[in-house]
Amino acid sequence: MRSEKIKHLATALTMVLSVLPVGVTDEGMWLFNNPPIKLLKEKYGFEPTDDWLLHLQQSSVRFNSGGSGSFVSEDGLVMSNHHVGSDALQKMSDEKHNYLREGFYARSLEEEKPCYDLELNVLISIEDVTERVNSAVPQSASPEEAFAARRRIIAQIEKESYEKTGLRSDVITLYQGGAYHLYRFKRYTDVRLVFAPEQQIAFFGGDPDNFEYPRYCLDICFFRVYENGKPAKITHWLKWNQIGVSDNELVFVSGHPGNTDRLLTVPELEYLRDNAFPYTLERLNRLEVLLNSWGQRTPENARRAMEDLFGVQNSRKARRGGLDGLLDPQFFVKKQQQDQQLQNEVAKRTELKDCADAWEKIAQAQKIIEKHSLEYRLLEGANGFNSELFRIARTLLRSTTESQKPDGERLREYRDSAKPSLELRLFSAMPIYEDYDELKLADSLRFLVAKLGWSNPLTQKILDGKSPVERASELVRNTKVKDINFRKTLYKQGITEVDAAKDPMIEFARLIDEPSREVRKIIETQDEIKQQAHAKIARARFLIESANTYPDATFTLRLAFGQVKGYTENGKQIPFQTTYRGLYERAAQMEYKPPFNLPERWIKSKSKLNLDAPLDFVSTADIIGGNSGSPVVNRNCELVGIIFDGNIQSLVLDFYYTETQARALAVSSRGILEALKKVYKADKLVKELVGKKG
Amino acid sequence: MRSEKIKHLATALTMVLSVLPVGVTDEGMWLFNNPPIKLLKEKYGFEPTDDWLLHLQQSSVRFNSGGSGSFVSEDGLVMSNHHVGSDALQKMSDEKHNYLREGFYARSLEEEKPCYDLELNVLISIEDVTERVNSAVPQSASPEEAFAARRRIIAQIEKESYEKTGLRSDVITLYQGGAYHLYRFKRYTDVRLVFAPEQQIAFFGGDPDNFEYPRYCLDICFFRVYENGKPAKITHWLKWNQIGVSDNELVFVSGHPGNTDRLLTVPELEYLRDNAFPYTLERLNRLEVLLNSWGQRTPENARRAMEDLFGVQNSRKARRGGLDGLLDPQFFVKKQQQDQQLQNEVAKRTELKDCADAWEKIAQAQKIIEKHSLEYRLLEGANGFNSELFRIARTLLRSTTESQKPDGERLREYRDSAKPSLELRLFSAMPIYEDYDELKLADSLRFLVAKLGWSNPLTQKILDGKSPVERASELVRNTKVKDINFRKTLYKQGITEVDAAKDPMIEFARLIDEPSREVRKIIETQDEIKQQAHAKIARARFLIESANTYPDATFTLRLAFGQVKGYTENGKQIPFQTTYRGLYERAAQMEYKPPFNLPERWIKSKSKLNLDAPLDFVSTADIIGGNSGSPVVNRNCELVGIIFDGNIQSLVLDFYYTETQARALAVSSRGILEALKKVYKADKLVKELVGKKG
Repeated sequence: MRSEKIKHLATALTMVLSVLPVGVTDEGMWLFNNPPIKLLKEKYGFEPTDDWLLHLQQSSVRFNSGGSGSFVSEDGLVMSNHHVGSDALQKMSDEKHNYLREGFYARSLEEEKPCYDLELNVLISIEDVTERVNSAVPQSASPEEAFAARRRIIAQIEKESYEKTGLRSDVITLYQGGAYHLYRFKRYTDVRLVFAPEQQIAFFGGDPDNFEYPRYCLDICFFRVYENGKPAKITHWLKWNQIGVSDNELVFVSGHPGNTDRLLTVPELEYLRDNAFPYTLERLNRLEVLLNSWGQRTPENARRAMEDLFGVQNSRKARRGGLDGLLDPQFFVKKQQQDQQLQNEVAKRTELKDCADAWEKIAQAQKIIEKHSLEYRLLEGANGFNSELFRIARTLLRSTTESQKPDGERLREYRDSAKPSLELRLFSAMPIYEDYDELKLADSLRFLVAKLGWSNPLTQKILDGKSPVERASELVRNTKVKDINFRKTLYKQGITEVDAAKDPMIEFARLIDEPSREVRKIIETQDEIKQQAHAKIARARFLIESANTYPDATFTLRLAFGQVKGYTENGKQIPFQTTYRGLYERAAQMEYKPPFNLPERWIKSKSKLNLDAPLDFVSTADIIGGNSGSPVVNRNCELVGIIFDGNIQSLVLDFYYTETQARALAVSSRGILEALKKVYKADKLVKELVGKKG
Repeated sequence: MRSEKIKHLATALTMVLSVLPVGVTDEGMWLFNNPPIKLLKEKYGFEPTDDWLLHLQQSSVRFNSGGSGSFVSEDGLVMSNHHVGSDALQKMSDEKHNYLREGFYARSLEEEKPCYDLELNVLISIEDVTERVNSAVPQSASPEEAFAARRRIIAQIEKESYEKTGLRSDVITLYQGGAYHLYRFKRYTDVRLVFAPEQQIAFFGGDPDNFEYPRYCLDICFFRVYENGKPAKITHWLKWNQIGVSDNELVFVSGHPGNTDRLLTVPELEYLRDNAFPYTLERLNRLEVLLNSWGQRTPENARRAMEDLFGVQNSRKARRGGLDGLLDPQFFVKKQQQDQQLQNEVAKRTELKDCADAWEKIAQAQKIIEKHSLEYRLLEGANGFNSELFRIARTLLRSTTESQKPDGERLREYRDSAKPSLELRLFSAMPIYEDYDELKLADSLRFLVAKLGWSNPLTQKILDGKSPVERASELVRNTKVKDINFRKTLYKQGITEVDAAKDPMIEFARLIDEPSREVRKIIETQDEIKQQAHAKIARARFLIESANTYPDATFTLRLAFGQVKGYTENGKQIPFQTTYRGLYERAAQMEYKPPFNLPERWIKSKSKLNLDAPLDFVSTADIIGGNSGSPVVNRNCELVGIIFDGNIQSLVLDFYYTETQARALAVSSRGILEALKKVYKADKLVKELVGKKG
């Protein structure tokens, strides 16, 4: 599943610079305000017009829970992956209704089911504010001052824009400081579920087949955005192509790749290989075992943990694949050479004299980051406090502290322009289960003890003379932040009342707030140093390589392109698409055992389906986690598919693009229609998709 | 499942001293040559005779694969747990027959199926050799010299005994150096499978219900030992009690508890809490995820990984429970007090003057062990080379080196008296699957890289310029040690031929042999220091507390006792036994989904079963991993049950005995008969169990 990366963005330690020389391959996650026009023309003889681009841009939707999607009707219908929507499905389920398991179909607008705290964004405009940001940071500033100045000006630009336009306004750091663009988004927060298949068919083959190909997943989900209680009227939406793709066809992917690390310097990549990835994998393995083992005790446990478990398994598989890329010694030899080459070139040019120390600066900063990364992850990243209730308590505590500061001096997530999104999540009515929250908190406390060490004074302060299990239990059972009204009161009244409340979880959050902020400051300062150094490298690279490039992924809208194309694996030709026939064969091969069991409906409908209809297909488009749910369109900008995964060979795309075997996986537009008509008899939905003119 | 500990004994870093003052509880894993006669008489008015004890002792069987069992007929019939026998079942299964899944029943002697490399031991006699061992170690010896001298005299005693009696002869270190006993075992190596139920009913509820109670497992398995091609004639075997147990009844458990850590000093326990347990859990979590994820890709993968996976899950659950015991601050407060009290007493007595420094010596040694433990586990413990083929290659390599040394100077596992067991395993014809071995080796190499660090010269030597995946692949694919005849030739011809062979896996084993031996030497030296110090503490404790005591567990035969008794949990009374009715109810509650699905046969036989017949029961007997399969007998020494697990509250028994909630789980003798008769129609087997006079 291709959404996993997003979940880690908030805690990502390393940000990325990427200014890539691109050649004859289908590489690239291009900015919509700097699309690969020349490249497309030369390689494919295709030249997208401004209208074509604007139409695709504004038909594209970002799911802030961590994925992509697109408008597919003028009445606000949005399609995404089931595994992007599953977060919402999980939250709206309860002991009686398990929409993940059962699926959902609203036969009328009235039946469409509101989602908790789901925010969709549509990119309306992009403005280059690099000049304004950079001129606000004095040349002579220390890293701490530079960081503060940059935070201030960015908050100011965002606030101005938000107040002027009413649009969500985010300044995006591109090329790791090489450029700053102001992105304005239209926000949709009244989002309702229209259709979801059973998870069993959406995620057919589960973890074992995840990131594998051939695949047989109907990984789709439909929502509708509402405004003022009515379906939103949409100008730009994608026309549905009923035929699907053909072999070697040129296709485009418009979505939100989360994070790539393609042009990190060697010390940064070594840090990922030796520290960040092994750490994350250790944590994910641990969580997977915990959730799996607890989930299997009762069906209700399984339901509660399901969505988290799938997310963890997905990340674990992605990380292991990424780590294998990093553990390839050849990769590092090549990287080292590239780094050295560029440094040699820089040394030759007097106009780049001030760039010469950039690599050393990064290496030094990386060392300091490495030294503090563990504490940063455990405290600020809350890896030691894996609890929804803790997250809420911390947000309440920090809101009151931060709101007393000027906007530009706050922790970034508490700036005024981010408030609507923050409040949406803080006051979400999604169910929180005490037993489940306690399970996760206790185990993350065990993890913290193992990592920080028992005798560490901070550990002792955190445990307060109790075992992890006892401590988690008392915190979860006694906190009042479970109550939304309690949250709202505290949020409004602020810190004094929080004090008075003496809520144990808020007190707990307070206990670690100082060390947590301290280590965050260290990391942010070093990130600033790296950012400045990367900006220099970017400048050098622009000058020396003068190629048209794209920045590393930042969970903002990008355009990728490629060809529908199979590949060879172990001497075997892997076809460009799979069919419904293949689905039933795979289920039979695996003896219909979970996760290869088919939903009842699918067993019954087999005879009605055209078994030769395409289900999934692959292309060479350059995607990464976050692209899940991205529309795949053809030259006519018609929707021909929806991205839902990459194959196992694509897991190195984090670090470099390759099209030998790496492929993006998509569900076919034709296959979707086949299922909606024959299996789900979702006539109303089908009519909305294809019954009207585009 | 109660067998897990054994698997870790070979690599256990910390050995244990335990001289426990025992009170009014049912605590104790007693030596058969020092049984709790007085205690039993006082508490239960029961006095076992010498005959009673000898009968039970020689009816008890040790499974060297890691568990216990007992003779249950005069014709060599042995009963153990399914999960003890499952290692043998896994090895005799192949792509066509999955005996774990299908179960097995031999309707005649001819149909009984030989096991690969399964060795059963029966304890024939015990001889105290403490005096002889100690007098061979000069007072003035350095730790290294003392270790060498001790190894020499022990090997000599064993060799003499083996040559004199033909019996397997092991000198067992008890009270961590307080005593040395020579144990003589009759070995059975022609072991054949007679009956096994489906794993689905033996391990009903799988990992989620493992270590939980109430439970519904028919965790049994029958083997037969042969001598000279015929069923062995057995003098001591247990009479089958057809009624089972009643509430509060006194019962005895005779089995092989693997390892306990009850009287470690505080620094040693801290080491377990802060280092050993977190490390092991990290490794187990990692393995569990790996095996689970690979196993689910195809049914054949699942079959290949199944037995390892269950073992890993079992250890993981046991360790987590144990760690929670260690993470209880109260436990350490108490330990600290006990340690201090004893030290204060020692300080008061001049005759114990030389014991005063024992605690400090242990603390110092523990620090050095801690420093080298990671390398020790990765190299000597082969945690970095998790591969059957590596294990074989190393054994071949070391056999040739060690056999050139005098018996008493060899690594312990290569001493003459251990040869028969070593060869049994080395030349086992059990199938080794390349893909599976490669999977495990690659992942353990990844683990080694993460732990030792990429830039470590040893890591680089091990990887030889390749990624872990590539390295594992070339080693596994190209080694010839898969071939038993190749092994036999090399084993016979020795090192020169090994050199000539240039087998990649043997060369690989050679690559790490020197650093591996070096770190082993460091650990063994420190263990010797600890052993001497613990012997002093033992002496002090004997003098001061002068209580009748039992040593910590050592995977040798022990006698435990207790009452059949339920307990209270969360205010709820948990009954002393479960019934077949409960089995069907639990399956229904869990919607018959794996691992709560019932075998076909069990669904069909429901109406025939007496649903009120007891299935499993609990008692307060003091058991630990390794006790799996231990017979439970009543005062008449009749078999009333078979131990198969402890409940979750019993997982702290590693560190201290408690009978508030901790319970030993057993399958009822009556329940077993019910199933054999009604579900399996195993009339011949039933007749052998109950049809003859005991």
